[in-house]
Amino acid sequence: MKLFDGGRAPNPRRVRVFLAEKGIEVPVAPVDMAAMEHRGPDVSSRNPLQRLPVLELDDGTVLCESIAICRYFEEIQPEPALFGRGAVGKALVEMWQRRMELNLLFPVAQAFRHIHPAMKGWEVPQVPDWGEANKPKAIEFLRLLDKELREREFIAGDDYSVADITGLVALDFMKPARIAVPEELANVLRWHRAIAARPSAAA
Amino acid sequence: MKLFDGGRAPNPRRVRVFLAEKGIEVPVAPVDMAAMEHRGPDVSSRNPLQRLPVLELDDGTVLCESIAICRYFEEIQPEPALFGRGAVGKALVEMWQRRMELNLLFPVAQAFRHIHPAMKGWEVPQVPDWGEANKPKAIEFLRLLDKELREREFIAGDDYSVADITGLVALDFMKPARIAVPEELANVLRWHRAIAARPSAAA
Repeated sequence: MKLFDGGRAPNPRRVRVFLAEKGIEVPVAPVDMAAMEHRGPDVSSRNPLQRLPVLELDDGTVLCESIAICRYFEEIQPEPALFGRGAVGKALVEMWQRRMELNLLFPVAQAFRHIHPAMKGWEVPQVPDWGEANKPKAIEFLRLLDKELREREFIAGDDYSVADITGLVALDFMKPARIAVPEELANVLRWHRAIAARPSAAA
Repeated sequence: MKLFDGGRAPNPRRVRVFLAEKGIEVPVAPVDMAAMEHRGPDVSSRNPLQRLPVLELDDGTVLCESIAICRYFEEIQPEPALFGRGAVGKALVEMWQRRMELNLLFPVAQAFRHIHPAMKGWEVPQVPDWGEANKPKAIEFLRLLDKELREREFIAGDDYSVADITGLVALDFMKPARIAVPEELANVLRWHRAIAARPSAAA
């Protein structure tokens, strides 16, 4: 199997952190996103959406979408469980993974893509007003998250999960997107410090 | 258990179609979204994001996010399998569910929310330029999908799945969003006719 990986972008990092938590090593085919190689033939022929990461299995099956790739590895190596345990546990992880993605990672990415001058060729057309509108959305969600994290250690409950991975990647992406985490959100900051200190965060 | 359901909006419909395909009946607590009841105490106390649908289990556990609610029902009643079978099958359904959501349902919803005058109080601030920018994104993805559907019956392969449900809801949502499906996309139209003719589509 082979993972087409593009370095610093948030979605490839989600898969790398996931694999590090599982202790799985996958041969990497590096793709230079800065040189737009993800729009070249190697990626385009496998993912017509021209996005990374892309996982190619030994039989030629191609899996795209970071969470779908993570799900594949959860299925072939269930431990440690990162998508939850039992019907309710799995549903709660899915709920929180989606909340972190749709209410934090997504708005942060929109702010970055629609405002940063380097993204002009990536996001066509850039709509700076939409980018700006997303900054308070991200902050508002973090305020809600701060209340939730008063009562538990991780995003989806007592165990680390893929929801924490999406959260880590989203929070770290706030820096290039130029959105500051409000200092008073002590629970969010405590959670982020703990997650960022895990060896997997370096992936 | 009790499902707080809000009528015609796309996400509540996703869960209803899913339940109809599974043959599961859940008692419904109706929420009048037109009267903004989803921002009232019944929903807010269960989902601080004030969105529908919301599933409350008998022990008081609250599940939000339509796909997380669907996942719960898949776990407690696996047949018919709507999230795929086996590691690769499950990953492919997840990949296509996400593609339908992120590249079709999401752009269509953005066009609707940022342009339709009735959405002024729902999407603050409305950014009409962003709404318009999403219309060609939806069409572009449909063109890609049309090529995929040349070779298979359903979105994620030979079996109907939750990816078809997201696709059905997204395509039907194009009408209020005022985006027309290009007539030449014969495979998309053939697929939509077949999916819309299933009894579950009336849910």
